[in-house]
Amino acid sequence: MPRAVREQQMLDAAVRTFARRGYRNASMDDIAEQAGVSKPLVYLYLNSKDELFAACIRREAASLVAAIRAAVEHDAPADRRLWSGLHGFFTYTAEHPDGWALLHVQARTHGDPFAREVAAMRAEIVEFVTHLLRTAVREHGCGAARTGRMTGGEAAGLAYALVGAAESLAEWAGGRADGGPSAEEAAATLMNFAWAGLGNLLRGERWSPGERVGA
Amino acid sequence: MPRAVREQQMLDAAVRTFARRGYRNASMDDIAEQAGVSKPLVYLYLNSKDELFAACIRREAASLVAAIRAAVEHDAPADRRLWSGLHGFFTYTAEHPDGWALLHVQARTHGDPFAREVAAMRAEIVEFVTHLLRTAVREHGCGAARTGRMTGGEAAGLAYALVGAAESLAEWAGGRADGGPSAEEAAATLMNFAWAGLGNLLRGERWSPGERVGA
Repeated sequence: MPRAVREQQMLDAAVRTFARRGYRNASMDDIAEQAGVSKPLVYLYLNSKDELFAACIRREAASLVAAIRAAVEHDAPADRRLWSGLHGFFTYTAEHPDGWALLHVQARTHGDPFAREVAAMRAEIVEFVTHLLRTAVREHGCGAARTGRMTGGEAAGLAYALVGAAESLAEWAGGRADGGPSAEEAAATLMNFAWAGLGNLLRGERWSPGERVGA
Repeated sequence: MPRAVREQQMLDAAVRTFARRGYRNASMDDIAEQAGVSKPLVYLYLNSKDELFAACIRREAASLVAAIRAAVEHDAPADRRLWSGLHGFFTYTAEHPDGWALLHVQARTHGDPFAREVAAMRAEIVEFVTHLLRTAVREHGCGAARTGRMTGGEAAGLAYALVGAAESLAEWAGGRADGGPSAEEAAATLMNFAWAGLGNLLRGERWSPGERVGA
């Protein structure tokens, strides 16, 4: 069997074991056994438990980002672009619960350098969403400047809000005993939550707190 | 000095030290010095570094939840109730950056039992937001049943989305070199993002993905 194939099998076993038992409780013996190889071979290929954990995080992060990018329907209207990206995210997290648990829970709960890898992936996703929003603003915003128009800094803030909302919803969906909402339902919930708000923003219509009650 | 007062001083010093240096790098010597007491006194009052860390998390979590509850204008319209709670959250996290870093980063990055304490606090906030949303549904939804009406399960999903969005936005706001948005700006950004969407939902109007482009 070629080295690259065997290495992917080891990473598959390691992702599953780290996700389900946590970094500290996962043993190299378990991982080797699950991968169907000897423990010395795991060390030969991936050096140490730390490096194996880091390799798992890098592979799963790249895979999640690629899934989102591939899902976006670039030629569609802005709401549909956002929806397709969200749908890709929720589909991926539903189909790869171990990979998602590794990134969202395990990698963040073991400090640096692992948390830093996840932070870099998250920054890439936020930047991608910010770009989607700015493109939508340009499409809607040509013509006269409007007072309520979304600014560049605000687009970044909205992207953080959207990514945080999606993560929280994926965590909730994955943790439910009854199977939780499907990827379609999760993406629709978030669009119902977010899009009409963003849609108004793109038209320059803002929410305002109004007068304080009793003031 | 009464014991209770001295204990709060120790917790103040410990929150600051844990938040800025992380659990592993924070020493009991530093904490005692910052609190202006001897190290044996810290151990006498709070037993161990683990128990001191747990006491910090419990105090900061209770304090954050109390701040949000106190900020909500219960007699106001639904959007204003939500806004006032968000405003309370962003004001608290801006004014207590060490407490927020302790809960959002440090406690979660050191596994159980600390992560469990934070999860319990988060569940309490999500439940509170779910209740706010369900109350809003009842206020808007009396009369004939509508097909687009928000369900109970959906309210929970939306609450998770909103809490995740708020956390992500607070993290972004706190991490910016230029000082970031004010609590007012952060709360307004999230309302612009979320409210118009929720507002439509409460009227039974949903977002729909429409037809696939090119299909």
